[in-house]
Amino acid sequence: MNTPVFSPSKRSEVAPFIAMDVLSEAAKLEAQGRSIVHMEVGQPSAPAPKAALSAATEALKHGRLGYTEALGIKPLRTALSDHYRHTYGVNVSAERIMATTGSSAGFNLAFLAAFDPGDRIVLTAPGYPAYRNILKALGLIPVEVEVGSDTRWCLTPEHLEAARREGPIRGVLVASPANPTGTMMSAEALDTLIHYCDDEGIWFISDEIYHGLDYAGEQKTALQTSEKVIIINSFSKYYCMTGWRIGWMVLPEQLVRPTERIAQSLYISPPELSQIAATSALGAVQELEAVKAGYAANRTLLLEGLPAIGFDKLLPVDGAFYIYADISRFSSNSLKFAKRILHEAGVAATPGVDFDPVHGHEFLRFSFAGAHEDMKSALERLSGFLG
Amino acid sequence: MNTPVFSPSKRSEVAPFIAMDVLSEAAKLEAQGRSIVHMEVGQPSAPAPKAALSAATEALKHGRLGYTEALGIKPLRTALSDHYRHTYGVNVSAERIMATTGSSAGFNLAFLAAFDPGDRIVLTAPGYPAYRNILKALGLIPVEVEVGSDTRWCLTPEHLEAARREGPIRGVLVASPANPTGTMMSAEALDTLIHYCDDEGIWFISDEIYHGLDYAGEQKTALQTSEKVIIINSFSKYYCMTGWRIGWMVLPEQLVRPTERIAQSLYISPPELSQIAATSALGAVQELEAVKAGYAANRTLLLEGLPAIGFDKLLPVDGAFYIYADISRFSSNSLKFAKRILHEAGVAATPGVDFDPVHGHEFLRFSFAGAHEDMKSALERLSGFLG
Repeated sequence: MNTPVFSPSKRSEVAPFIAMDVLSEAAKLEAQGRSIVHMEVGQPSAPAPKAALSAATEALKHGRLGYTEALGIKPLRTALSDHYRHTYGVNVSAERIMATTGSSAGFNLAFLAAFDPGDRIVLTAPGYPAYRNILKALGLIPVEVEVGSDTRWCLTPEHLEAARREGPIRGVLVASPANPTGTMMSAEALDTLIHYCDDEGIWFISDEIYHGLDYAGEQKTALQTSEKVIIINSFSKYYCMTGWRIGWMVLPEQLVRPTERIAQSLYISPPELSQIAATSALGAVQELEAVKAGYAANRTLLLEGLPAIGFDKLLPVDGAFYIYADISRFSSNSLKFAKRILHEAGVAATPGVDFDPVHGHEFLRFSFAGAHEDMKSALERLSGFLG
Repeated sequence: MNTPVFSPSKRSEVAPFIAMDVLSEAAKLEAQGRSIVHMEVGQPSAPAPKAALSAATEALKHGRLGYTEALGIKPLRTALSDHYRHTYGVNVSAERIMATTGSSAGFNLAFLAAFDPGDRIVLTAPGYPAYRNILKALGLIPVEVEVGSDTRWCLTPEHLEAARREGPIRGVLVASPANPTGTMMSAEALDTLIHYCDDEGIWFISDEIYHGLDYAGEQKTALQTSEKVIIINSFSKYYCMTGWRIGWMVLPEQLVRPTERIAQSLYISPPELSQIAATSALGAVQELEAVKAGYAANRTLLLEGLPAIGFDKLLPVDGAFYIYADISRFSSNSLKFAKRILHEAGVAATPGVDFDPVHGHEFLRFSFAGAHEDMKSALERLSGFLG
């Protein structure tokens, strides 16, 4: 008889999400009494909007929180349909909108509903590491395309043509504003890319989780160009509701029922309290615009302050709340460098290797979603550490 | 140029979770003003325990709800470790306990961490349909073993021996108390099965989501027999927190980090408010035992009432809150029969085909987690309908 082997699966050998590991290490230092400025995770320091908190508090008073339909509660889906009409001037029926347990569930569901094992999906590098990890866990092949200053860190049909020479491409996943770069695609660049995908039968997945957080151009949803796209969005960023784990998808009609079926088994339904709170959050624009003004102030502070202390090569920050900084003059090992500034300066930032296995060792991502005082403190600490 | 094809993936062709579809149809009838008694989903009618609601209300007052560590907040993991000591007399370190977004996330994570595409996993038929659907979505092969009265609807090493003659078996998933049958394994039967799996290098996954809800024998966790097992549990059933989407896993040491890595990308973290509320729920035993007494009263009512109106072949209801009723004297099409009693009698129940593709057309599952008055009303309505 062979000795029984209880080993983890091969597919569990995905890379860790280093930002979460940094968060975990920072928490340990804080438990030891250290003060840490958190710039490692993309997490607003503001709480959920007041209207969302009141709606949740009220719901806690009245009876049970239960399973909802897998697609989510009707009021939330209807409010999101209105949101598309008001914000972008597009008509999207509530039937095509599905509430999800954060954008995390959105990605997982989109990948399962649209792709079969072995399918190749184009991502940008740098890019959000969970894309790659979820794709791999599901038996899909991430095709990472290096983007740089020549295309303003955006994917183009030419990139896709090149990728297709290596094998068929079944889908493309794009975020604008992007993580970790904060760059945005112009309306023209987005249009061109979507039309290319539509014409070629390539699923276009648009991660619009940083919508609402734009400082430069005007944002555009992929739905303004095509009804064939899959939209992933979330209440985590603009709406300051990370810990609530609530997001949504907009699906082309033929994917609604397949995605619902998968969600019934994989998630049952998103948390009901979060769905109720999110419905109210959609109306809290005034409060949220004030929060955004705070990010804008942080952005201005850091775009001046970071170069002054030596981080002089920063990517353009069109949107989101990230600064992706070239650290090559200080280190060619971003993992080690991030560890040093965490332990020695008390500033938590995420090493670029989380986002880009090739060039990420020369970059750090700073999130400026925190309080303004914290950003000032981070600059002082980093300044002291560097020099 | 070929016409571009935007079709759903092959793997999205999983069966729907019919209980959720019945819920959805029942909701539509209610929206039209119809009165429906809900016996279709396994959902307590009681709200979360008072201590959980207070903890959540308090947390809403104090600042932001954010991402937590992927493994969950420390107080919850520690409280669960205490729970195992108090309830079962076993020592399980908090490091091996992981909070999950409901047991749904637990199954998905366990399957991804332990199994690779093509692996064969044994399930019982009848059984919880999401097992089968999640396995299929992840490229795994569910091997459904028909269990019956000869083994008191329990899986045995002989079943596994038979299944292994068709091909290697990498894992076994067992629920006791079971869904939809409500049957429980005896301590001896559970021990024997786990030892067999341990000896043969087969992952044993124990779904203990209905623990706490036993009316006949004494419940045992698989951890009392082995440290190699994977435990999946949830606050949805005994703790009345379905809509909160919060559960937990106990993992063998070598699976903790692989599972954490996958969870970082697939879930980021479970909802923070639910983690806080769940920590408090663990102490609310007195309140929850009163809820359980209500189930026991419903169980007694239905075990007398259902045979009296013609449902005279019921499985033993050792635990959980389900009655699995043979309806062959009324119909050999449980889907159609369930639709008729929903529309004509206003009673929502789940057709057996959800749980057992082979014999399920002759069974209905009634959940008795609802209010006692509703159970009485259901008996009256069914009695009127049947004749």
